[in-house]
Amino acid sequence: MNDTFLRACRGEQVECTPVWLMRQAGRYLPQYQAVRANVDFLTLCKTPELAAEVTLQPVDILGVDAAILFSDILIPVEAMGMSLEFTEKSGPVLGEPLRNKSAVDKLIVPDTEDDMPFVIETIRILREKLTVPLIGFSGAPFTLATYMIEGGSSKNFVHTKRMMFQNSRLFQYLMEKLTLMVTSYLAAQIRAGVQAVQIFDTWAGAVTPYDYRESVLPFVKKAIAELKKEGVPVIYFANDCAGILHEVKKSGADIFGIDWKIDMGDAIKKLGKKAVVQGNLDPCALFLSKEEIEERVKDILWKGETARGHIFNLGHGILPETPVEHAVALVEAVHKYGRKG
Amino acid sequence: MNDTFLRACRGEQVECTPVWLMRQAGRYLPQYQAVRANVDFLTLCKTPELAAEVTLQPVDILGVDAAILFSDILIPVEAMGMSLEFTEKSGPVLGEPLRNKSAVDKLIVPDTEDDMPFVIETIRILREKLTVPLIGFSGAPFTLATYMIEGGSSKNFVHTKRMMFQNSRLFQYLMEKLTLMVTSYLAAQIRAGVQAVQIFDTWAGAVTPYDYRESVLPFVKKAIAELKKEGVPVIYFANDCAGILHEVKKSGADIFGIDWKIDMGDAIKKLGKKAVVQGNLDPCALFLSKEEIEERVKDILWKGETARGHIFNLGHGILPETPVEHAVALVEAVHKYGRKG
Repeated sequence: MNDTFLRACRGEQVECTPVWLMRQAGRYLPQYQAVRANVDFLTLCKTPELAAEVTLQPVDILGVDAAILFSDILIPVEAMGMSLEFTEKSGPVLGEPLRNKSAVDKLIVPDTEDDMPFVIETIRILREKLTVPLIGFSGAPFTLATYMIEGGSSKNFVHTKRMMFQNSRLFQYLMEKLTLMVTSYLAAQIRAGVQAVQIFDTWAGAVTPYDYRESVLPFVKKAIAELKKEGVPVIYFANDCAGILHEVKKSGADIFGIDWKIDMGDAIKKLGKKAVVQGNLDPCALFLSKEEIEERVKDILWKGETARGHIFNLGHGILPETPVEHAVALVEAVHKYGRKG
Repeated sequence: MNDTFLRACRGEQVECTPVWLMRQAGRYLPQYQAVRANVDFLTLCKTPELAAEVTLQPVDILGVDAAILFSDILIPVEAMGMSLEFTEKSGPVLGEPLRNKSAVDKLIVPDTEDDMPFVIETIRILREKLTVPLIGFSGAPFTLATYMIEGGSSKNFVHTKRMMFQNSRLFQYLMEKLTLMVTSYLAAQIRAGVQAVQIFDTWAGAVTPYDYRESVLPFVKKAIAELKKEGVPVIYFANDCAGILHEVKKSGADIFGIDWKIDMGDAIKKLGKKAVVQGNLDPCALFLSKEEIEERVKDILWKGETARGHIFNLGHGILPETPVEHAVALVEAVHKYGRKG
């Protein structure tokens, strides 16, 4: 069992910097495309054998040091009672966006074992087959709220901020419900066998530092505090964190995911040298030549050395256009130039 | 003549903090909608009487301290030889995105007086009618390059970064040409009568700090150095600046536009107290009550006091959904609580 990832999560000494890639089970892999050719995205998420198969692919193909459950952050939102579809053009579409109290009233806090048994089953299959640790995940309360209020992706988050600003009690009510869901969903994943969890706050950077502190952070902080009782490392990836990292620091996370819009050295300065960090290569850097990828990897590794622990990753999900051999080169470069015990 | 804006630009003492709003001549104004009802967006940009009319509207309706030429950053890109359309759904569409050298070869550096006479004429009309200073503007080389390479708006800037990473000579060639265009376009606006210029780098934050320094900053810096010879203040708005502000600082701009994803106090700390800043209210904050708008205005004004000069503005363009009376309340709050010479 390769446990470098888990030891790095705990800030322990490792003989090699571990690496995994956000969205590593994804469209850039022909093997993933082959599975997807026969099944739509949501069915893939909900079919344990297939979800496990694509979760395993990058472990074999890239040689990464951790696997992440194949799923989508909106799966539990569907289980809360909203209708969910994925369209080729506009991404996720949530039917009847939340705009009033009765819509929020109707949302249930799902029981993962009963309402999303496929998640539990996928984890069980994976734990039997994996030789690297398995990461579970959830969207953060705020990020999920944006999809639910907007009805999908958004540019300016007008509906979300309108609710936040004009009906803060309703917004808080929704955020409380989502915090319960996130906590219970991740706890269930941990019980089923995931060895670390990552909370994706993709839209954390869509509010001002003030609003992040007042309306976003308190909820994710509460979820993290609850989850830490479960005894596995909690990674918090607040995307677009450059302007809010001094607040993100207060979340209580064990590991901080760092996007690519901030220099890793600057991020560590803001978080303090006791922090364990994860990141932060621009996914587009995989369009560079292998030699240039190596240079960028070395730069981030060198900066990562100043933190207590560093898990190499991209600063955002790997893009469908990525050449697989460049992703392989990235993983090899991390293993070649990373920390040496 | 109200010259508070120009004096603030120069860091001189003012009896009142000046304020204007990005995209203040825009769809949130019924008077603008009335003009647009009879004419499409591009025709509006190219019809001096109408462009001047909508430029003047917010000066009368909101009482702002500066006007900004009504136009679009892609107008000179069309003049360079690309076909431009605006669609209701996807925004700007540039025909035949730039992907190879011969496409870049074909681009001309337009002569503003000959190729965009409507811009010159609009400025002349406005200078006759305005009682506040007139700001001219251009997109920054990098931001324009993204539209030209992607063919419009983009999420991940895959084509732009591919060119930047895989064909850096071609990318540089395009950036050089755009730098010439931006410089000559803004110089022509200054000759025609604009009293300050703003360079919009909407997508400056779409690259890593390293790539910003290597591939974006040098070009805008060159344009600013040239423009400073023209003797009017140069505002540089690098959007999403939180992770790159230490580099943006080196641009040589007289005034730094600050988006809303960073605290104004933090931004001033990074730029130094000798800086003149502009910004940084979240456009969505205009959905708050008038009392809460006032509180946010006071907070930004208080932080702005620590800089040599502060021009109040939003951190991005005003949104179409904005209630006009809230925009008026914002301007009143700035005038009520701003610097008192």
